[in-house]
Amino acid sequence: MMTTVLKFGGSSVATIEQIQAISDYLQTRVATGEKLVVVVSAMGKTTDSLLSLAKQITDRPMIRELDRLLAVGEEQTISLLSIALNSRGVPAISLTGQQAGIDTMGIHTKSKIKAIRKEVLHEKLRQYDVLIVAGFQGVNEAGDVTTLGRGGSDTTAVALAAVLSQRCEIYTDVAGVYTTDPRIHPTAKRLDTVSYDEMMEMSALGSKVMEMRSVELAKKYDVNIFVGKTLSSEGGTWIMDTTQAMEQKAVTSVSVVKNVLSVSIKHIPHTAAGVADIFERLSERHVNIDMISQTAFDGEVFLSFTCPLDEEAFLEEALAELTATLPQIKIDRHTEHAKISVVGIGMRDATGVASELFATFREMGIPFYQVTTSEISISYTIQEQDVEAAVAAIAARFHL
Amino acid sequence: MMTTVLKFGGSSVATIEQIQAISDYLQTRVATGEKLVVVVSAMGKTTDSLLSLAKQITDRPMIRELDRLLAVGEEQTISLLSIALNSRGVPAISLTGQQAGIDTMGIHTKSKIKAIRKEVLHEKLRQYDVLIVAGFQGVNEAGDVTTLGRGGSDTTAVALAAVLSQRCEIYTDVAGVYTTDPRIHPTAKRLDTVSYDEMMEMSALGSKVMEMRSVELAKKYDVNIFVGKTLSSEGGTWIMDTTQAMEQKAVTSVSVVKNVLSVSIKHIPHTAAGVADIFERLSERHVNIDMISQTAFDGEVFLSFTCPLDEEAFLEEALAELTATLPQIKIDRHTEHAKISVVGIGMRDATGVASELFATFREMGIPFYQVTTSEISISYTIQEQDVEAAVAAIAARFHL
Repeated sequence: MMTTVLKFGGSSVATIEQIQAISDYLQTRVATGEKLVVVVSAMGKTTDSLLSLAKQITDRPMIRELDRLLAVGEEQTISLLSIALNSRGVPAISLTGQQAGIDTMGIHTKSKIKAIRKEVLHEKLRQYDVLIVAGFQGVNEAGDVTTLGRGGSDTTAVALAAVLSQRCEIYTDVAGVYTTDPRIHPTAKRLDTVSYDEMMEMSALGSKVMEMRSVELAKKYDVNIFVGKTLSSEGGTWIMDTTQAMEQKAVTSVSVVKNVLSVSIKHIPHTAAGVADIFERLSERHVNIDMISQTAFDGEVFLSFTCPLDEEAFLEEALAELTATLPQIKIDRHTEHAKISVVGIGMRDATGVASELFATFREMGIPFYQVTTSEISISYTIQEQDVEAAVAAIAARFHL
Repeated sequence: MMTTVLKFGGSSVATIEQIQAISDYLQTRVATGEKLVVVVSAMGKTTDSLLSLAKQITDRPMIRELDRLLAVGEEQTISLLSIALNSRGVPAISLTGQQAGIDTMGIHTKSKIKAIRKEVLHEKLRQYDVLIVAGFQGVNEAGDVTTLGRGGSDTTAVALAAVLSQRCEIYTDVAGVYTTDPRIHPTAKRLDTVSYDEMMEMSALGSKVMEMRSVELAKKYDVNIFVGKTLSSEGGTWIMDTTQAMEQKAVTSVSVVKNVLSVSIKHIPHTAAGVADIFERLSERHVNIDMISQTAFDGEVFLSFTCPLDEEAFLEEALAELTATLPQIKIDRHTEHAKISVVGIGMRDATGVASELFATFREMGIPFYQVTTSEISISYTIQEQDVEAAVAAIAARFHL
């Protein structure tokens, strides 16, 4: 009998009405003879509310206890969904992470799944049509509940699919993965399929559809992921191994991160200490550096990097210290920059994507400042005012 | 080292401020060298809110899932209290019922404690000064969370004291056990001690201080219970074995239940079927019968009983059926009655308590209707308007 893993995020189970509607839907799936493993998150903003209770006590709650606290959110959802399914006569059972055999390792609040004792799940699947599993949690060797950190419920779903079905449906509030953000580029198209590598690159570059670690896990265990909108017939996107596809587009998506602060520094002495010293001062102040480009001429280093605009105060502190130590350097700042990234697995093989992009910027008269590349992506910093024109031009050029 | 079990009810941990204040208090106890096992309930009305979510889905939620849902209330409190204690540098750890080794049996939502694996607790007490245990819950043989039903957190506390310390402090919103309800009789006195049997009788007769099962458990395992007001220095009441006391009062308390409906029926044919038929019709309609008195003369039965006033409609349905079957019966109803009960372990030995009570009613000119007795209590139905005068007269007569 076919088993499918489905996952519903917090915004899809925020109210009793939504839980009832999802139960109706699951009942129709069970009626077709499927066995379902359903992973759910905490209802709506429950996790945030629980966290805020802990923060009212102390800024640094003990992480073992914080995990115990946060885990109740998912435990609430699984019992309510199971009550709803059973009230419809659907044989269903709720399982905590521990009861589902999800063993974790590593530190509290950021633990990793070590193994899933799948015989537990197989036994329950013989007795019930639907297993409802608490996402985001497992149990460590000490017998304590641990949580999996950001994107944790997706990770639970993918890990369960890896041992049960190789197939996982993630339901959320967007109808799949788009070539670019539909809010910036209204004619953005939804991708029917996207490869694991492209999706990971897109996650790393700011796409909020899935956290990178879940996609990484899916790639490792060859789990096909469907991403779609909860209770919608709009369709969605399959994240899967597309290397077998007959034809591959060079570029599959464009993503944008706004509110980027760009810094360029010249006349840095070309010694091992020079650049390291800069990043050490930034790291001490927890400034999140994103893009880094460096060139060197005649014993001098030219360095550019970006960070989020809201970390400007800490950045300036570090730069002031730096100027005191190295008075010869000259610093340029741009506070109205955005990062635009073009992703495509086809870029591995296809030549000329970079040059086509440079040509696009030239034709549009859009200046760009910093450029970084990875195997399947190119990122540029441009002025924020140019973002919409740039996305439209790139989408037109690469037929997105 | 001395170990004490303490229990704080839901109204004592309803807010973060209260949890902080309890943590301050526990810190002072730990500073004296005590080891503490603290049992807590769900915050404020959390259990009611969770139950209401389930009831929004269905009137009859599956009880296994309801238990899983309700258990999150206590799990939230234990983590928050542990966060608060650890933030003060007090070595504390939260334990779910399962982690505390509380094994249960029997049906979900009304399970009983089968055993406590105390070696788990002893090991944790070597490592921590405070163990914070989720009240009201345990784990059954299937590995599922079960809840203990009404008064469940008190039962958890008494059961832990039975294996750890023979001593249990129950903190609530009343400062102990009173001779009578202070709201009816403002000069009601708090009892310094009360025996297990008296307390059980008082619980059965409507006292809300503790559920009978917890007191029964305390008696069985000889656990001394202190009942007092949370974070107050007002003192409280010890529930304990008082048979060793040098002197015993015959009467220790008076309790009152208002909104009682009294029914008297005469001319019932004296056959086995007659009275049974009446109670069967009442039971089918879930009417809760409390006091029952029956006398018989000349082949006719005279029956009186009481039930809560808000069940009047169901009662009348049953009585209408009865009249159709047995047209010769005559029914009297009193809707403005109250039950007044006098409790005292000394009544076992002391003669004359009943006659003194009858004399008291006569002197006050207070009519009473139905009388029932147990080994250590006597209950009367009287008119509600006479309750205050009756309580005052009995209190004066027996020096309460």
